[in-house]
Amino acid sequence: MKLQQISIVLVEPSHPGNIGAAARALKTMGLTRLILVKPRLFPHEDASARAAGAEDVLDRAEVVDSLDQAIADTQLVIGTSVRDRQVVWPTIKPRQLPDLLQQNWQAHGEAEVAIVFGRERSGLTNTELDKTQWQLRIPANPDYGSLNLASAIQIVAYELYSALDSISDVAPVDDETEQTGAQQRQRLATRNELEGYYEHLQETLEQIGFVKTRPPIKLMRKIVRLYNRAQVSIEELQILRGMLTAIQDLLSSNPK
Amino acid sequence: MKLQQISIVLVEPSHPGNIGAAARALKTMGLTRLILVKPRLFPHEDASARAAGAEDVLDRAEVVDSLDQAIADTQLVIGTSVRDRQVVWPTIKPRQLPDLLQQNWQAHGEAEVAIVFGRERSGLTNTELDKTQWQLRIPANPDYGSLNLASAIQIVAYELYSALDSISDVAPVDDETEQTGAQQRQRLATRNELEGYYEHLQETLEQIGFVKTRPPIKLMRKIVRLYNRAQVSIEELQILRGMLTAIQDLLSSNPK
Repeated sequence: MKLQQISIVLVEPSHPGNIGAAARALKTMGLTRLILVKPRLFPHEDASARAAGAEDVLDRAEVVDSLDQAIADTQLVIGTSVRDRQVVWPTIKPRQLPDLLQQNWQAHGEAEVAIVFGRERSGLTNTELDKTQWQLRIPANPDYGSLNLASAIQIVAYELYSALDSISDVAPVDDETEQTGAQQRQRLATRNELEGYYEHLQETLEQIGFVKTRPPIKLMRKIVRLYNRAQVSIEELQILRGMLTAIQDLLSSNPK
Repeated sequence: MKLQQISIVLVEPSHPGNIGAAARALKTMGLTRLILVKPRLFPHEDASARAAGAEDVLDRAEVVDSLDQAIADTQLVIGTSVRDRQVVWPTIKPRQLPDLLQQNWQAHGEAEVAIVFGRERSGLTNTELDKTQWQLRIPANPDYGSLNLASAIQIVAYELYSALDSISDVAPVDDETEQTGAQQRQRLATRNELEGYYEHLQETLEQIGFVKTRPPIKLMRKIVRLYNRAQVSIEELQILRGMLTAIQDLLSSNPK
């Protein structure tokens, strides 16, 4: 799976809680490779607490002394920034990242990729950004773009997972012979079944005197629109028709 | 700006730090309306600490006693879930959310929207999900989908900001005095108006003898889901209630 080719690098994170939250964010999106450049405090109980079930990502995290070391074996390095830089880097949004990686993989085989996140307060230095090929900028409120480190990682990981995890969109097995009773009840009513309901409803509305003009074309059109929109299941249609039958039974036992 | 029509509702958050992180996540994406249903601890220093510059969102957060109160005036309610439910709700991904809102706004004017997030451990109950029209599911690792609450909010807010912020300038003039009669009829029913219909319907079903158990909890849940999904306009609601009244009038003039 392509997600395995991607490392997330944190440069000098100062809060161990953020490291744990980052591990959790990665694991929820199928990423597992975390590299820490000179973390201020690690390992640390705050990291473990915030990892909440993603301790395995923390345990396997690599701790290194420099960004150079972290990205030594990678072929594509992407830096992140929320600030405008004077230097004009080629900049992409998280949404564009999967395509960029796909193009690279198609052109160059399975390149190792690093996505580098800077310090909580000051981000990446220009010297560090020089080592990157692309700058990743998350769209944010121009008046307050201060994303939490783990939140920024969550967004990037989410975009990668949404696009790259090829099985995420595959519909569940849908073998009709194995449909459960619940699935059968949930199947959408057919057009014919709906038409039968609309006729039944119109008949009942005429019987209870709700209808002023016959046939009540405008009224029925409004009602039809409502139920068409709802995408009625066969079970629901049976309930709706049951109500009409109950009203009709009542009328025939108590004629007006 | 359309983002202003959207409230984020947290149901019984247990960690005040998550409330602060949620406020920060919202503000980075231009959202400002936070509603807290029975927070365990709030206000709290952990919330303020994690808000980090988004204290204004916390200060303006509304604290209420029930989900019903939180969504009373909203016309479109979206619940979030990471789990598969047996009941098949209409489900969308965060990526599809902006289109859903746009379609609603185009069809029904500027509906108030609530996006509801459940408890950290257990999410939303089925009873709470019954009050929603759509279920929002964030794509995630099937083996570990445990997103932090604020991270989930960050992803949803990011999708909203990415899609809605860019078109905010073309929002139509929104002078209520200039709403046409058609727009007023088409506006979505509020939660309170829908609840009034459900009560009226249950009463009528009991009167016509359609109901075997009292109160008919399972039946009403199925019916509520159907109408929630349909996104009923106020005009349609008046038709539906008119039918009930016609049936009741008939019953009172012809007692069984």
